Amino acid sequence: MFRKIISISTHSEGEIVDLTGQVTAVIHESGVREGLVHLFVRHSTAALTTIEHEPGVLADLSRALSVLAPDREEYAHNTRWGDGNGRSHVKAALVGPSLTVPVTGGALGCGTWQQIVLLELDVNAGRERQVVCTVTGD
Amino acid sequence: MFRKIISISTHSEGEIVDLTGQVTAVIHESGVREGLVHLFVRHSTAALTTIEHEPGVLADLSRALSVLAPDREEYAHNTRWGDGNGRSHVKAALVGPSLTVPVTGGALGCGTWQQIVLLELDVNAGRERQVVCTVTGD
Amino acid sequence: MFRKIISISTHSEGEIVDLTGQVTAVIHESGVREGLVHLFVRHSTAALTTIEHEPGVLADLSRALSVLAPDREEYAHNTRWGDGNGRSHVKAALVGPSLTVPVTGGALGCGTWQQIVLLELDVNAGRERQVVCTVTGD
Repeated sequence: MFRKIISISTHSEGEIVDLTGQVTAVIHESGVREGLVHLFVRHSTAALTTIEHEPGVLADLSRALSVLAPDREEYAHNTRWGDGNGRSHVKAALVGPSLTVPVTGGALGCGTWQQIVLLELDVNAGRERQVVCTVTGD
Repeated sequence: MFRKIISISTHSEGEIVDLTGQVTAVIHESGVREGLVHLFVRHSTAALTTIEHEPGVLADLSRALSVLAPDREEYAHNTRWGDGNGRSHVKAALVGPSLTVPVTGGALGCGTWQQIVLLELDVNAGRERQVVCTVTGD
Repeated sequence: MFRKIISISTHSEGEIVDLTGQVTAVIHESGVREGLVHLFVRHSTAALTTIEHEPGVLADLSRALSVLAPDREEYAHNTRWGDGNGRSHVKAALVGPSLTVPVTGGALGCGTWQQIVLLELDVNAGRERQVVCTVTGD
């Protein structure tokens, strides 16, 4: 088992960061040829998924998340804590913090149009995000 | 590999149960210091995710799930089977049954405001839910 | 670690394919009795989850996904690339490409009413989909 933390500086709500290159670098460093890479974001207002990392799709995804958790909705979280990031928590819980991808031939087993992305969902800009990257296999 | 079933008694639709303490206990029992813990809920009307376990956010999450699967919608599942829990199946399939979290230093690798939760989504109250908890590593 | 690719031919948008039998066959071939099976779909317009594989629920799930990504919405992805599958990318990113399920007693550890499914979300019909199936354990 090989583990490394990927640290990401984000700048604004709705930012979608392509982690594919950094995850690939961790796989190479691990020396694993056939196995799995597990990713976990250690925050409740960020999430992980895969998507084609193309500006059009990313805008479309942000719009869809706003259907679930609109900007102008009243959030019980905001009323209680005054954080203003109720929508961020909701979106993050629905997308999820965890992702596992095959490692094949020493490379990431994603499809051609399928990148690993971190969704920065917090309304409060300028965050440091940690993604725990664990590689297992031979 | 160490495995244990966590059993949870739920009482009502929309209940969100914090499993963090029970998962931590399983990790301790396993003796694993560095590895992964995998959780899987063996039911089609419950789901697993992470969230800040605070009543405001939990209410906000339930509201968001109702946008996807409103209470008053007509469900083909209900029409066919008369179960009344069509919305429960839909929400569970979208959130998902499976979650993997790092184990670091013998502890759960979640963030400070990030708890592991079971979502009880069934309209029929009073269920016994099983979460299969598998710890791997050293 | 045992790995096999499950190949699926799909025919239309919204098709929901039950993979449970094929995943069970891979587990048997692996000889693993206690462990985990990880599934990953190598495409950005398909997704994996669990659901009761019953036509009513499947129709209800498709309707719910259309709330998030309606057919008649304008998609930035479509405007840029003319693919017409903006909604497919959005739905796939929200449901997710990855799923891990326990193997217990040499069998899949799903609940009775809980099947593993591939969601074909692309608007362009007739696709060959690859699901990477990795079994670990003893």
